[in-house]
Amino acid sequence: MITVVVLGTGNLAHHLCQAFSINVKVKLLQVYGRNTTALKNFEKFAETTNSLDTLKKSDVYVIAVNDGAINKVATALKDREGLVVHTAGALPMDSINNKNRGVFYPLQSFSKERKIDFSTIPIGIEAFHPNDKILLHNLGASISNKVFDLSSDKRIKLHVAAVFVNNFVNHLYSIGAYICNQQEIPFEILHPLIRETADKIRILSPEEAQTGPASRNDMETMKQHLEYVNNPLHKKIYQLMSESINQSYEKKL
Amino acid sequence: MITVVVLGTGNLAHHLCQAFSINVKVKLLQVYGRNTTALKNFEKFAETTNSLDTLKKSDVYVIAVNDGAINKVATALKDREGLVVHTAGALPMDSINNKNRGVFYPLQSFSKERKIDFSTIPIGIEAFHPNDKILLHNLGASISNKVFDLSSDKRIKLHVAAVFVNNFVNHLYSIGAYICNQQEIPFEILHPLIRETADKIRILSPEEAQTGPASRNDMETMKQHLEYVNNPLHKKIYQLMSESINQSYEKKL
Repeated sequence: MITVVVLGTGNLAHHLCQAFSINVKVKLLQVYGRNTTALKNFEKFAETTNSLDTLKKSDVYVIAVNDGAINKVATALKDREGLVVHTAGALPMDSINNKNRGVFYPLQSFSKERKIDFSTIPIGIEAFHPNDKILLHNLGASISNKVFDLSSDKRIKLHVAAVFVNNFVNHLYSIGAYICNQQEIPFEILHPLIRETADKIRILSPEEAQTGPASRNDMETMKQHLEYVNNPLHKKIYQLMSESINQSYEKKL
Repeated sequence: MITVVVLGTGNLAHHLCQAFSINVKVKLLQVYGRNTTALKNFEKFAETTNSLDTLKKSDVYVIAVNDGAINKVATALKDREGLVVHTAGALPMDSINNKNRGVFYPLQSFSKERKIDFSTIPIGIEAFHPNDKILLHNLGASISNKVFDLSSDKRIKLHVAAVFVNNFVNHLYSIGAYICNQQEIPFEILHPLIRETADKIRILSPEEAQTGPASRNDMETMKQHLEYVNNPLHKKIYQLMSESINQSYEKKL
């Protein structure tokens, strides 16, 4: 049984607590948060506290606060015997200077409104001490089927990839919704296409799956499309993405 | 019973023939294609021909060839009584000049390798004659649960939106795969994130779902990320997408 204290009351903290609290291999001892209103929602999972001085002794302390607050919270835990891990994609392990430190990085985008099946979420782990890596591996494997070693350097680069396939993809959805809205067409019309585009790359590589005017260098359609894009930034995005697709495609010829 | 002749042997033609051939409300009379090798694969669906002169009399002729060849095929059908429709997103209905003309536009991305459930695919229809619109509606409704009127003008704009959420999204997946490849991390690690990003916008609007460094104007993370992106076009895409996300976000404040 691995004892865990979670620090943070955001979306990731919420989903982690949910997964840990129903897990027989983990004992979620406590949840810490500064915001007492947010903390109320965590009472169903474990004891809660808004004071770092009253934290219980635990095998692992999982810091799931905003990147900017991680160092401060970790510093408050510097005399603890337990393993202190952060959960950030963009920060190196050594951004916390605790003796026993590590990273526990679930590669997913969390919203309170969405239920998550943690078993499918890859968790990248890193620890300063080899024994702590085994501990983290066990903790990860208790909730996920996909726990893997991930150095700080690789994690940060993987986080960049995640920004492209998650944040930027979502922004393209926003642009799609914006165009639909202008045409008084419900955005739902695009849902099947969006899902198929996401699912197709499980069977084909994205390079193989690429279609559209830019991939066949169909200048006429692209020129016509640009006339219809009235937002200047969207126009630039159309041009740049087409240029990049075209370049990838030409390389293959 | 609506009789149909399909012209074309590409992915869309293949999926349409598959859907029509098993449908009790439709009789797929014939498939036309110039490429006799490709045409072989259609023999399981209906009679095939590689001569436009031997086309059967039919209620509807569905042209599913490349945009550039549509006009030529339509012209060969100009004396036919039946309704001649094209299936292109980017071309107006009047790009074919048949007396009885229309458009039958399934809003999906088709690959031969992927099975498609046509019932979930929205089909936008347009016809020159009101009676033909009823015919097209019935044809669409025989294979899809979502048939809707779509004028040429709106269709072309919707096609632009589709390019953003399909072609451009897929290219962002390519960039993600490229970064993973450089790090010797399997791209499959990103699959759950990709699926969740696509599924989330069924519950939240893309604007509500937006997360990441650009949406919170986290300059430090963005600066660090840019150092890790070594492909010049990918770097430009990172900057432009971040600028566009940031601008949408600022508007809301």
